[in-house]
Formats: sequence, structure tokens, C-alpha cells
Amino acid sequence: MLEIIERKRWGGKLSRAMIEDAVLGYTRGEIPDYQMSALLMAICLNGMDEEETFELTRAMARSGERVDLTAIPGVKVDKHSTGGVADTTTLVIGPWAAAVGVPVAKMSGRGLSFTGGTIDKLEAIPGFRTDLSMAEFTAAVREVGVAVTGQSGELAPADKKIYALRDVTGTVESLPLIASSIMSKKLSSGADGLVLDVKCGEGAFMATKEAGEELARAMVRIAGSAGLRAVALVTAMDQPLGENIGNALEVAEAIEILQGGRKDSDLYRVCRALAAEMTALSLGLEQREAEKRLDAALSTGEALEKFRAMVARQGGDPETADHPARLYDPPAFVITAWRDGVIEAQHPRALGLLAQRMGAGREKLGDAIDPKVGLVLKKRVGDPVAAGEPLCEVHLGRRMDEAAVRERFKEAVVIGEKAEKRPVLLARIDETG
Amino acid sequence: MLEIIERKRWGGKLSRAMIEDAVLGYTRGEIPDYQMSALLMAICLNGMDEEETFELTRAMARSGERVDLTAIPGVKVDKHSTGGVADTTTLVIGPWAAAVGVPVAKMSGRGLSFTGGTIDKLEAIPGFRTDLSMAEFTAAVREVGVAVTGQSGELAPADKKIYALRDVTGTVESLPLIASSIMSKKLSSGADGLVLDVKCGEGAFMATKEAGEELARAMVRIAGSAGLRAVALVTAMDQPLGENIGNALEVAEAIEILQGGRKDSDLYRVCRALAAEMTALSLGLEQREAEKRLDAALSTGEALEKFRAMVARQGGDPETADHPARLYDPPAFVITAWRDGVIEAQHPRALGLLAQRMGAGREKLGDAIDPKVGLVLKKRVGDPVAAGEPLCEVHLGRRMDEAAVRERFKEAVVIGEKAEKRPVLLARIDETG
Repeated sequence: MLEIIERKRWGGKLSRAMIEDAVLGYTRGEIPDYQMSALLMAICLNGMDEEETFELTRAMARSGERVDLTAIPGVKVDKHSTGGVADTTTLVIGPWAAAVGVPVAKMSGRGLSFTGGTIDKLEAIPGFRTDLSMAEFTAAVREVGVAVTGQSGELAPADKKIYALRDVTGTVESLPLIASSIMSKKLSSGADGLVLDVKCGEGAFMATKEAGEELARAMVRIAGSAGLRAVALVTAMDQPLGENIGNALEVAEAIEILQGGRKDSDLYRVCRALAAEMTALSLGLEQREAEKRLDAALSTGEALEKFRAMVARQGGDPETADHPARLYDPPAFVITAWRDGVIEAQHPRALGLLAQRMGAGREKLGDAIDPKVGLVLKKRVGDPVAAGEPLCEVHLGRRMDEAAVRERFKEAVVIGEKAEKRPVLLARIDETG
Repeated sequence: MLEIIERKRWGGKLSRAMIEDAVLGYTRGEIPDYQMSALLMAICLNGMDEEETFELTRAMARSGERVDLTAIPGVKVDKHSTGGVADTTTLVIGPWAAAVGVPVAKMSGRGLSFTGGTIDKLEAIPGFRTDLSMAEFTAAVREVGVAVTGQSGELAPADKKIYALRDVTGTVESLPLIASSIMSKKLSSGADGLVLDVKCGEGAFMATKEAGEELARAMVRIAGSAGLRAVALVTAMDQPLGENIGNALEVAEAIEILQGGRKDSDLYRVCRALAAEMTALSLGLEQREAEKRLDAALSTGEALEKFRAMVARQGGDPETADHPARLYDPPAFVITAWRDGVIEAQHPRALGLLAQRMGAGREKLGDAIDPKVGLVLKKRVGDPVAAGEPLCEVHLGRRMDEAAVRERFKEAVVIGEKAEKRPVLLARIDETG
């Protein structure tokens, strides 16, 4: 291990064998934390080339199980988002793509810190089971065309252990480490193709569009090296993607889109673009043809029907698809504009943290969450507002009081003189770069 | 700590408070190894400026005791060598400088790996005590003018702990870390001034003269920041400094120089230069005047007399000063030149390791050593040799057999066609840079 650390320290290239020794030795507990953290810091500062990054991803993927989806016919395409606030795309895209014939076998995670998690959102639907066994999961996908469940077994345990160490040693921000961490789990997911949603902006790992493109390129390259077809969209995360933040509220917003609503929203735009990529990859279609079929599935109600079938199959009440408002209580109060102006900023991290504190998220794994709390934003960045106009409906819960929520909201939202609407779809990266 | 790591990771400057928190927290066991190793790697790759290096040195020095030499009158000047093979300078310089009135209170260490240690050498003199209490030590210096003892108490325990971690995390080679490690112990040594012997060449930390000068400059600057006058000589370590390698043999060589012999040797040149720096610093003399007094002390026998007094005061047989050959047995065999030619190389690390294996040194602390074993080199790099001429007298002991010693010696010494004699004194660095 010392030799491996020193090689990277002096800017050298690590071989496949060296990377495997380090990753697998560390996972088995044979290599101490202090050596791994020195190596990680050397990687942060001296980088890794494409080949090394792939080998690191591969070694971490090999440290655990691989999901077997071969029982499901068709080309399975996974979707992965690098995480943001009010990002409800999975709930929309899953049924939507399934409605045009894409087999969607989606394993999702829980939220942590200011970002939500699909599994938490689905559990806001009473009775909805997210702990399907592998047999139940594949059967559900074969029958319904779509299923979403929590991870069974442990994918890439090396990544989990290394990530925990990075978190406490100042080695989180590193393109090869971030890309390999995400992709190690994706290489284990059993999918044949992959559509990535790489967020950039202040509510994301990557602050700028350029950094987002760089990460997207690194991940698409890793997928290619592993023989997986992949496309990445770089999308903006400088305000919450959807208008609703909070588990039941986000499910409701997803349903509204599946019902054919909210066509002028950023959430709709991102969902349609991602679903089109998945459909094109899975069915081997041109982009335009994929979009045409998706648009039809939405207007005929087939997409909503898939959602209904999925909820029913996984133990939830299918009527949720028609009455999403039953999932939550009416708002406790409304925050209105404190001045005339234009919405200059709605800081996604601050709003995500506020919703988390209200009970929508957890500070550490195992914390209980309150599915009904959250925020409904009535404006987007660039919208003009008049003093007294509603900015946000607050679904309060019991963890915070009204005054504290109002104070924090005012810190998270800026009303100024001038701001432009910005696009949400920023770039598309495929195997050609 | 995370904030400190991240600041250095991104190339920022660490404040005094940050460095103290890191060093003292780590020494107390509050900061885990894996965070310290990440910080050390970030320091290796992003460096530390002069101020940070000084603060690191200071924090490590403050982690332990400080030797109190105030009971000894006069300006105490310590000498420190960065370590090499056949470097017997302390045994020569101590009595020599004491003979002209410099108070020499020297705490020395033991050898490790291929380098020897002054304490091991002195223990080759039967009865010589190297475990003086502080009271005995200062009393001996006051009475005799010179005493050499092992370290009592723990100087800079932070350095000890950090060095052990660097050793296993690929973070040894770093100018600020090397300079602060050495200097943290020197700032605790109680001296008023410091003469540094920075070795460079293949048998030293620093491979080139330039690297040696850089380290010398960094250490002299740290000393200056701490209010200590310091001078550094950069000297060659591309062959053993002296002709004898091994504890008793090195004592004997030191005595020969104190008897006025070996004036054409590199060891003599380095000893005279270092002693002159010490004398100049301590007595406030011009360099030339210091040399004149030293030359006189050697020719009158006063330097040897000081050695004799020191040995007597510390429990050894004073007659050693007149009969150094009593310390060891006659050589077991002689290795002769295997061809005509010129000595091209006598690799110091290989020769040091050979002597160590024969029993002159230890592989790990606590190993027993055999004071009588070692090598006596009969040639220097650049010397012509005829086939069959003696190259080395071997004082064998019981740990290795003759054939193995011959084989390893032949790997360590190169007889070629042409080689030039190289100077041993390469540069002098003082506060002016």
C-alpha cells in the first residue's frame, strides 16, 4: 500500500492491480484508514486518468453484489440523478417510460441532509411497499412494466466505506472520486443502459455548468469502459427543480405531471428530456420518435395508468393517482412577498435544509420523517412579485414553529430588482463527448 | 480538523491556531490518524510557507519538555547532523570545541537502519555511561566542559508520533515536514545556537546539493524565527564520511583525529569546519580566529585531553584516548581489489546496511548490537587501485559469514576506469541565506 500511495503522491499512474489491492484490502479491513486517507488526498491533488478512474469504479463495484435483472426481458435503462432539491423525476419518468414499453426496474435510496430520496417519497403513499424481494421486484416489472424499490443487499460496500472516510478527511471534492463513487453503484445495478442527470449550481456537488459537464463526461466514459450505453444531461440546480419540497407534496406534483399538467415547468422539461433519452436508449429510437410516443402516452392517460398500476402492485391505494391532495393536509400558513420586485434567488440548499428541519428529511440515517410537511413555492426565479403576494404555502408539522420557518425562508429567498429566467436543460453529453 | 485539512487541500495557508490545534490534538489522541495523514499528504503536495513551517516546528516543540541548560554558563551551541554513514563528527567536535572554551552539552541518539548513532558509539567504550540524569549532565559540562548523553525525557513527542505516521503513509519526503521534524527537537534542546550539518548525496535524505541547500535554508530560517542563531554546512554523503564503519572502529577513528592524525581526510575537514562554526557562534569570534584556536588545541593535545576527561567523567577508561585499538579485535580478513582501476563508488547506504547486518546497527529499536564489528575502508572514491591491493579490513563478528560479506561488499563498491575526487564541504548557509 505504501508503494501505491507513493506512486500517486509523485503523480504516477496506478495499475489495475494496485487499485484492486487498495480498494479490496481496505474494504476487508487489511489496510488502515490512515493509509487510505493519504491515498485519497493524493488522488484529490494529483488526479486520476480515465483508465484509473474506470479501474477504481470497477474495483468498488466488484466489492459487493451485482443485481441480476436478466429475468426481465428488454433493454433495461437505469436513470440516476446526482441529487438535488424537489427532484421528483423518478416518480414521473418511471411510469411514463414504462407506458411506452421501456422496462423500468428502479432501485432507489433515501434522502440525506438537504436532498430528498425517492423511497421516502413513495412511502408517503399509505401502504406502498419499498422493500420488495428480488423475486417480487422482477415479477412486478414483468407484469406492470415498472417497479421502484429500496436496495436489497449491499451494492459496492467499498464505496460506502471509502465515502465515509472521504467525508471526514476533506477528500469529497474530486472528479474521479465522485464519478467512480456514483458509477460503482450503477455498474452493480444490472441495467444495460444509463441516463444520468448531472445537477449543477449551488444546490449540487458541481457548482458550474462546466464542472457538471466534466463530471458527466467522466461518468459516461466509465459507463462506456464497462460496456454500458450512457447519456448524461446537465441540468440546473440553482433553485429547487419542482415547486414542491417534501415527500407527499412531491408525490402530488409528480402525479400532476402524469395527469398532463404543469407543462410549463422545469420539472416537466427535465422529466420529458430524461424519459426521451431512456426511451431512445431502450427501444433504439430516434430522439424525436421517442418524444412523440411519450407525448402520446401522457395525453392518452397511459402514463398515469402505469403509475396507478405500480402503486396498486406495490400495496398502495391506486386512487392516489386521482386524488394526490389526500396525501397531505392543507397548508398551515402562507408566506407572502415582503416587497415589490423580482425573485432573484431561491437557494435550493437552504430551502432543502428548511424542509428537512420541518421533518421532511433526516439529519442522520434512522431519523423518523414526517411525510406530510414541506413547502410549496408559488414563484420561480425571474418572476415579478408584488408585496403581499403568496410566495410559499407552508405545510408545517410539529418540529418547527411558524416564526422560525418564516425567518429561515426569508434567508433562503431573495426579492431584488431584476433577474432573468434561466434554462434548466444545460447540456447533453453522450459517448461522442 | 476537517476545515484545516480542506484549507491545506485547496492550497490555503494555515494559521498558528490551526497548526497548534492539529498538532496538539493529534498528540493527545483527539484527532484520528486518518485525518492527520490526509493533512500530511496535503502538506506534501501543496507545501507550507516559511511562517507555517515555523509554526509547525514550534507546535511540535511545545508538545513536550524543554531541556534546561541555564545552569551551564556561556553560549551553548548544539550541533546536528541529518545523518549519514561513518559520521563520527560529534565525538571529535565535542571535546575539540570544549578545548577552546565552548560549553558542549550534547544529547545524542541511537542508530537506526544504515546510519549509526553517537550513543551506540560511546557505549563501545567499556563503562561509559550515556544515561546521565539532567543534574549529572549539567554538572559534567560545568566541570569538564563537555558531556554527551542520551535523551532523558521526551523531546517533541508530537514529532515522534507524526514521524511514525509519515513513515507508513508516503509522506516522509517533504521539505517543510523534514525541516520541522528536525528543528522541533532542536528548539527543545536548550541551546542558544545551532550548527547544522546537512548531508546530501545517495546516503542522505537529500539527494542533491541543491536540495541540501534548500533544507539547510529552511532550518536556518526556522532557527532564526525561534530566536536561535544558526549556521548550516552542506556536506557530501556520496561515500561514507569516515574510513571506519562500526561503533568501536568509529570511536577509534575519532580518537586518531583528536591525536592530530588523518589531516587529509574528509572526516577531519568536516569536523574542523563544524567545530569552527560552533566556536565562532559560541565565543563570538571571526571564523579565522576560531580555526586558529582549534588548530592550536589539536597540536597541544588539549582536544585529546578533553576527550580523556569526558570519558573518565562518564565512567569509561581514560586510557582509551591513548590506546583506541584496545576497543576492537584485529580484522578477520581483508577484501582486496578484484581488478586494476579507480574507485568509482563506495555506496554509503549499502555499506551502512552491510555493517548493520554484521551487528553494528539494529533493524528495530531494542535489537542488541555488537560494538566491535565493522568495516575499515582503505580507499576513497577517486583513488587508483591495483588488483590485490587491500580495499577493506573486515571486523566480522558472528552474524554473517565471510562469503556473504565479500559478496555484499562487491555490490557496494565499484572499481571503474575513471573517477574524480569530489569535495566534501559543498556550501555554507547562514541567516543571510
